[in-house]
Amino acid sequence: MDENKLKKESLDLHKKYQGKIETRNKFKVDTLEELSKVYSPGVAEPCKVIADDPGKAYELTTKGSTVAVVSDGSAVLGLGNIGPTAAIPVMEGKVMLLKELAGLNGFPICLATQDVDEIVNAVRWISPVFGGIILEDISAPRCFEVEARLQHCGIPIMHDDQHGTAIVVLSGILNASKLVNKPLHTLKVVINGDGSAGVAIAKILKCLKLGVESCNPVKEILICNKEGIISKDRDDLTKVHKELLEFTNPENRSGDLREALKGADVFIGVSVGGLLKADDIQKMNKDAIIFALANPEPEIMPDEALKGGAAVVATGRSDFPNQVNNVLAFPGLFKGALETRRKRITEKMKLMAAIAIASCIDDVTKDSIIPSPLDKRVVDKVANAIKEISDE
Amino acid sequence: MDENKLKKESLDLHKKYQGKIETRNKFKVDTLEELSKVYSPGVAEPCKVIADDPGKAYELTTKGSTVAVVSDGSAVLGLGNIGPTAAIPVMEGKVMLLKELAGLNGFPICLATQDVDEIVNAVRWISPVFGGIILEDISAPRCFEVEARLQHCGIPIMHDDQHGTAIVVLSGILNASKLVNKPLHTLKVVINGDGSAGVAIAKILKCLKLGVESCNPVKEILICNKEGIISKDRDDLTKVHKELLEFTNPENRSGDLREALKGADVFIGVSVGGLLKADDIQKMNKDAIIFALANPEPEIMPDEALKGGAAVVATGRSDFPNQVNNVLAFPGLFKGALETRRKRITEKMKLMAAIAIASCIDDVTKDSIIPSPLDKRVVDKVANAIKEISDE
Repeated sequence: MDENKLKKESLDLHKKYQGKIETRNKFKVDTLEELSKVYSPGVAEPCKVIADDPGKAYELTTKGSTVAVVSDGSAVLGLGNIGPTAAIPVMEGKVMLLKELAGLNGFPICLATQDVDEIVNAVRWISPVFGGIILEDISAPRCFEVEARLQHCGIPIMHDDQHGTAIVVLSGILNASKLVNKPLHTLKVVINGDGSAGVAIAKILKCLKLGVESCNPVKEILICNKEGIISKDRDDLTKVHKELLEFTNPENRSGDLREALKGADVFIGVSVGGLLKADDIQKMNKDAIIFALANPEPEIMPDEALKGGAAVVATGRSDFPNQVNNVLAFPGLFKGALETRRKRITEKMKLMAAIAIASCIDDVTKDSIIPSPLDKRVVDKVANAIKEISDE
Repeated sequence: MDENKLKKESLDLHKKYQGKIETRNKFKVDTLEELSKVYSPGVAEPCKVIADDPGKAYELTTKGSTVAVVSDGSAVLGLGNIGPTAAIPVMEGKVMLLKELAGLNGFPICLATQDVDEIVNAVRWISPVFGGIILEDISAPRCFEVEARLQHCGIPIMHDDQHGTAIVVLSGILNASKLVNKPLHTLKVVINGDGSAGVAIAKILKCLKLGVESCNPVKEILICNKEGIISKDRDDLTKVHKELLEFTNPENRSGDLREALKGADVFIGVSVGGLLKADDIQKMNKDAIIFALANPEPEIMPDEALKGGAAVVATGRSDFPNQVNNVLAFPGLFKGALETRRKRITEKMKLMAAIAIASCIDDVTKDSIIPSPLDKRVVDKVANAIKEISDE
């Protein structure tokens, strides 16, 4: 669809409905007898049962099917730090997808603070009524600390911009590696972008072997940012960079993105668009695998990448094949986690989710390594994969 | 209904539905085109519009029809401090009533903290997505400070245990005073209970003249607690007691509840049940007005009060006439406040709500001074009364 037409139609839709979600009652309360059961005095009984055994909240309240979608509005889409109120439409959209795809009750929580301690406290304090928390559009590096500090709050928490993207990228790599007949452990991977998605993609590629014998770590990961390859020799390294260097760039290579691409098998762009030309792809190994995920303009357009010798191209856009859309991951992941009352989202769950998503493609071709975002089979495959993992 | 039967049926209902509320999408998202409008990339447009003008959130998101029902679980029904998770069924019940009666989208927020500063911060931080906040089941005296400190957070906030009850009691007093032909300014009122409801009832009786010429303050208010009448001579006065003494007990009377009742016209019990007998009512003035609101056992049973000479009796129970149920107040009050985008709930709004509720009784009799909790006319009468108030 034409960009201006899409803008207008999206705005009209939001105006027409005054928001996209609502709360509804599961049954009617229109007699005094019903009122006395759902509210005082009858409601005291389920309260007492939960007071004696808090786990009963999963049976007697909506906790077990309810997920908060939490943002501080600091990194909303490509719009940047537009604040919590302007972020509401995105969070409502995510809530819609939780319902439409996984039948879960989401609720948008947009926080009027961007302080790490305060975000952590706010999420902890509101957690009793939720079975899980999705963090969304929180800028790096704060997002890493917020997510890490919330891992022990008793319910599964995941920053979707990190792990949702990483899971779907991995599902694409799993199928693409089959397509080009290059085993995972032979792949040299270049990630351009050291924000939330880039870091999480690097981490999931490191964890590949976790309990899944057929999945080995990739051979080499290089991460680039605007200043080039992240290497031990640089003097601008952050805490996050130093963690990444524990498992990336083993040969301590230096140079710019083009230097990194020499001899690489996979390029994953999660930064800015319009960086690469066909020539750059030619420097990569034969049958290169390209994830050009910058939005709306990819790092390289699919036809240009194919001209440079790429075997397969994925983007973030719905108008090209192989769209990397994290809607493939979070609904099934949280459905499975909530139905088995998990206390956290583990690395293994993310890995199994990626394998489940990849398995939805029966016939892998260059135009089909990732399922459609609305493929109804994906949610249950992912949820079932999560449910089959034994508790750790 | 038999008490044990009610307990069992309430528990069964909660188990059957696994909670009473859910979130729903206002329309379906099942095509990629719809997806691109409700989520990335189309959703960027309403985000940008709100970033430029935050007030547009009322038109483009559910903010304008969404109310948080917030508790810390410290004073739940008559169960006491059962904590936030065990409080969820009550908050869900309240959310149901907001939808059923006022069409508003409520959401339960049960906070895992009982610290005043932390509650205030939590509510402030989560406020962007809500058009209003109902505080619920927070114990006194913390509830007073929490509510007072949140008055400037930009959306209407009300502690329902205080003001919901006070509004409905006042509506009953307005009709009862007509019934017994005693003008408001002649009434001597005794309130037994210095918790959230007792304090709020005293305050609304003080504010009666606010902009409504026909309503004058009552003649005298005495407040009692377990130690008797709150008077300047006591050495156990709290900050709240001292505030109350600025407008109660003008003759500095001392003594127990029975002493207070001598010559009183109105008794309002918001403490413990089974305190009074017919003899005690006989000490009051002729045609006494009795609000025996302790639950489940009232301070005096209606037949006993009538035997003692009471002209009219209200209780908190649905199996007697004149049930004081705050469900008569909060749905219409918040509907009116949200539809006119108020920034706070004012004293005048509470007063006008009480007058609107009272006006729903066409033919005042001793068995009909307060409308039924499910009387469908009440919400719109209250909401319209709020809307008619000019902005202050």
